[in-house]
Amino acid sequence: MKPNTLVTLTTDFGLQDAYVGVMKGVIWGIAPQVKLVDLTHSIAPQDLWAARFQLANSVPYFPPGTVHVAVVDPGVGSQRRAIAIQCSQGWLVGPDNGLFGGVLERYPAQKVVNLSDRSYWRERSPSFTFQGRDIFAPVAAHLAQGVALEALGEAIAPHQLVQLTLPALEFEPVFEPVFKPKPGSKSGSKPVREPIPERIWATVQHLDHFGNGITTLGYTSRGGALFRGMHGRVQIGSSLIPAGKTYGAVPPGEAVALWGSHGWLEIAVNQGSARAVLGLSVGDRVEILLGD
Amino acid sequence: MKPNTLVTLTTDFGLQDAYVGVMKGVIWGIAPQVKLVDLTHSIAPQDLWAARFQLANSVPYFPPGTVHVAVVDPGVGSQRRAIAIQCSQGWLVGPDNGLFGGVLERYPAQKVVNLSDRSYWRERSPSFTFQGRDIFAPVAAHLAQGVALEALGEAIAPHQLVQLTLPALEFEPVFEPVFKPKPGSKSGSKPVREPIPERIWATVQHLDHFGNGITTLGYTSRGGALFRGMHGRVQIGSSLIPAGKTYGAVPPGEAVALWGSHGWLEIAVNQGSARAVLGLSVGDRVEILLGD
Amino acid sequence: MKPNTLVTLTTDFGLQDAYVGVMKGVIWGIAPQVKLVDLTHSIAPQDLWAARFQLANSVPYFPPGTVHVAVVDPGVGSQRRAIAIQCSQGWLVGPDNGLFGGVLERYPAQKVVNLSDRSYWRERSPSFTFQGRDIFAPVAAHLAQGVALEALGEAIAPHQLVQLTLPALEFEPVFEPVFKPKPGSKSGSKPVREPIPERIWATVQHLDHFGNGITTLGYTSRGGALFRGMHGRVQIGSSLIPAGKTYGAVPPGEAVALWGSHGWLEIAVNQGSARAVLGLSVGDRVEILLGD
Repeated sequence: MKPNTLVTLTTDFGLQDAYVGVMKGVIWGIAPQVKLVDLTHSIAPQDLWAARFQLANSVPYFPPGTVHVAVVDPGVGSQRRAIAIQCSQGWLVGPDNGLFGGVLERYPAQKVVNLSDRSYWRERSPSFTFQGRDIFAPVAAHLAQGVALEALGEAIAPHQLVQLTLPALEFEPVFEPVFKPKPGSKSGSKPVREPIPERIWATVQHLDHFGNGITTLGYTSRGGALFRGMHGRVQIGSSLIPAGKTYGAVPPGEAVALWGSHGWLEIAVNQGSARAVLGLSVGDRVEILLGD
Repeated sequence: MKPNTLVTLTTDFGLQDAYVGVMKGVIWGIAPQVKLVDLTHSIAPQDLWAARFQLANSVPYFPPGTVHVAVVDPGVGSQRRAIAIQCSQGWLVGPDNGLFGGVLERYPAQKVVNLSDRSYWRERSPSFTFQGRDIFAPVAAHLAQGVALEALGEAIAPHQLVQLTLPALEFEPVFEPVFKPKPGSKSGSKPVREPIPERIWATVQHLDHFGNGITTLGYTSRGGALFRGMHGRVQIGSSLIPAGKTYGAVPPGEAVALWGSHGWLEIAVNQGSARAVLGLSVGDRVEILLGD
Repeated sequence: MKPNTLVTLTTDFGLQDAYVGVMKGVIWGIAPQVKLVDLTHSIAPQDLWAARFQLANSVPYFPPGTVHVAVVDPGVGSQRRAIAIQCSQGWLVGPDNGLFGGVLERYPAQKVVNLSDRSYWRERSPSFTFQGRDIFAPVAAHLAQGVALEALGEAIAPHQLVQLTLPALEFEPVFEPVFKPKPGSKSGSKPVREPIPERIWATVQHLDHFGNGITTLGYTSRGGALFRGMHGRVQIGSSLIPAGKTYGAVPPGEAVALWGSHGWLEIAVNQGSARAVLGLSVGDRVEILLGD
């Protein structure tokens, strides 16, 4: 038994009901030494991408050897697999529906098993609707107690894991020329071909509690490197948002583009909400201007 | 001292204020070895039935010897008693207003005491409005430390505990004959007496975070046994809802009646909310058709 | 290492995102023996006064030696200082923006340091937007592990701490004479000068989850002493609210003024919400009548 192993929980169960508390009772009934951390239980019902985002941006801050349980599970009770994954950062336990894809981009899966050995479940006949309580919680507790991953079920090849993709997820470099009227030329005159500054696109992949819009442009990506000098701006509709290092780089109530704490380019409003002020939604495309 | 004893907390305090955190500070100040679990703090203010429901459906999943504290307490500061109960599953601590009735149906009270010994309170003169902090939290901590129930105050006979009832709580079997026009008979002709398929009634006793409607028909009740073959349907107004084993038994957006993880017949909408789609409310009566 | 040291967390991060969970991962990565308590994470974004209120009314209920971390931080990434404070009740860690002022009124600062020693941070180059994760969480963990306050950075004189004030915070005794028509005198006759009963004013400083309005009149203040006999009333607009000892001192749905569990005069509605029924807001002034 390893004392002080951490087990984190991520669900869409909310806190209105005792579902999360019951999972903790099951875990501590098996593994009384572990420490439990709630990542969040406020994922919108069945919003797999939001859960994937939270996990990808949280797992790096936990000690190696942590067990991360995630239950956002539209297919509960169906034929979708229940899995456990081993990676260099610890273990991941949940349904095989792509929840862990963001974590695995950073910490590739070393071993994956299908959770088929019922002796590690809470009951050999689990409920059809609450496998967080009946399968994932007890399996996580057994892993934290030192049970080997291989004992939990038959191996699955990592490339067989279900992948989750979001429309417009990846930024695409754009180098297209545009036509602008030559300055000083008469209105209606023939436009002159001029290269515009290099632009890239990103997508708003998450809106956080503060209304900050977190984009898909990562600090360590090529696009991120191009933007890093902080000479760029971000265009959303007709708004041109300056880059800054902190929220306070602009006056209160104004928008700023900065490298957020997750390592993604973030659209924020100083002491306000970019969601409210700019009307941002998840899935919105933003244009990133790399020139001055 | 028993290390690793669990203490659960159920309140209507919400998470906006530090009331729950303060109770934990008091408990850990007395019993630093216990583990604390939040069942829920989102009970609607003074909704005794909701608290009773959450406790009844959570306590079975905790290890025996757990101390369950519940504070939903419209009568705080009045003459209502403060009690602790011992049952085979552990201890129950809170006001004597029926909160624990659902737990006690499954695990009958073995001993009950009136919490009158002020030496186990936080202060000998507790506040009139926050006895969760001043009486229930410290008493729970002392129980977890091994103090005997009898030390906390004078005995009460279990049958003297306050009971809580909800209107229309129990299903009632219905076997009434109805009059249907005989097929083929002329409109307006004399109706023929025919027995209808056996029906029972249940009440929606809880709507959970997902909008699932949990009824009062239990899997192990006689009515449950009759329905178990999954040939039945549930009628709500003019909607006839088929039975299924999983949410996915019906297409997304459609309603299904299934045995929920609590062991109650549950009305759900696959990947949606029965509350929103069917307009369900707590207290609604639903008609359960046992025939084909 | 001191086992079982408590570390509390107070933020405006909400529970939608994993920000709080990530702070816990960082803390337990450094100090696996501590116990973590959430005071609240539902402070309205950047509402410093609400955080100050929650801390002031919670810290007294924790064991001495607890480490209290608070992160409500509109100036994150700017020149505002990051500090740790030692007082007789434990340690306080967060931004220097007045959050801890209410705690320090009761437990004066003994030592204060500017958190400048980067070896106690999570990374030597912390993010500009999430210093809860990168500075405050690791510093709190090191304090809980026994690192001396002095090691964390250079000393600051306690009187140099930023103070937070709210408009109309302090009650002001009012002894003004008023003119009232003499009883029995004819309408329009010359008014007779009469002293009115002593009155004081207070401000609604917090509205809690139940809609109770907690005023700035403290039980142990001079004004509180005057009101204590429970002969007084509270006037809000044209409503005259009687004093009572418990919520149940008035019928359900009616307002009562009582000494709340925090030690402040509180305006409540029995089994209802004073916010809803009386339209209370934070900052409202209420007139407290000390006579009969």
